Amino acid sequence: MKRIAIDMDEVIADFNQKHLALFNRDYNENITIVDLHGTKLRELRPHLKEEIRNYIIEPTFFRDLEVMKDCQEVIKELSEHYEIFITTAAMEFPTSFTAKYEWLKEHFNFLSDMNFVFCGDKSIIKADYLIDDNVRHFERFSGQGILFTAPHNINEKGYVRVNNWQEVRNYFLK
Amino acid sequence: MKRIAIDMDEVIADFNQKHLALFNRDYNENITIVDLHGTKLRELRPHLKEEIRNYIIEPTFFRDLEVMKDCQEVIKELSEHYEIFITTAAMEFPTSFTAKYEWLKEHFNFLSDMNFVFCGDKSIIKADYLIDDNVRHFERFSGQGILFTAPHNINEKGYVRVNNWQEVRNYFLK
Repeated sequence: MKRIAIDMDEVIADFNQKHLALFNRDYNENITIVDLHGTKLRELRPHLKEEIRNYIIEPTFFRDLEVMKDCQEVIKELSEHYEIFITTAAMEFPTSFTAKYEWLKEHFNFLSDMNFVFCGDKSIIKADYLIDDNVRHFERFSGQGILFTAPHNINEKGYVRVNNWQEVRNYFLK
Repeated sequence: MKRIAIDMDEVIADFNQKHLALFNRDYNENITIVDLHGTKLRELRPHLKEEIRNYIIEPTFFRDLEVMKDCQEVIKELSEHYEIFITTAAMEFPTSFTAKYEWLKEHFNFLSDMNFVFCGDKSIIKADYLIDDNVRHFERFSGQGILFTAPHNINEKGYVRVNNWQEVRNYFLK
């Protein structure tokens, strides 16, 4: 059985929606997802870099993110044909461990928690495929990297790209 | 550069010493490491299985474990010749994430936290070597498993075995 490793933020967990909403509320701004095309919020507002990061190091930030559209159904279906591991660079936000774990238990209870991986450098991941929104994780990955479209990666070229979970489904099950 | 993945409990962190001390104190017992040869505390005292586990799910249990003899020096030396990752099955004890992270930051601050991995099923680990006290992790591991002697594994046969960190040093650096 081949193995698919799947990232969390901006792939199965809707990071931007909450992050932007909090930022817009607190700074009376109206930044949209389109404004993030090819960039990141911290690059758009560099003078607020620390404040922008502070939202994320809040231990509960990751606990109530929305699940990305269709991904529960598609991952459930994939799990009948592939080994599924959730591989998140949680070491970048060590305050997030518990929230990320509880979120996965709530929304992906059909996966074993033995298949959750909190790491940093994803070259440690042994899998046939890695679905991720950060191209840097593909550099030393020995399997096939699959770039999940996120605002910040929209201009990246030269990768197998999927734009949503229906496209993931088509890639693996058609 | 070849890569060595290293387990935490009973390999770099002295799990048994603290666990036994707490148990002996609370139950007025005098169980020693030798009593654990080829077994586990929960198998020696099955009627106290839940209590024995309760020590470990206490969120701070892993925070103040002793560092195993010589392992800091040897890992530091190994890290000049190998990529080192710390790979612990923390998903078995989700309450332990923060304590394990802080323990690693305290005692192995010469390693990047991007090289810490909290997982469950270690077949996800891509490394050339895995130093671990649990033989089950070698079953689907694609590299060379190296069994670090612990009381419970003392009767396991057919594995490359190291008894202490000087033997690890000799294996990799001689």
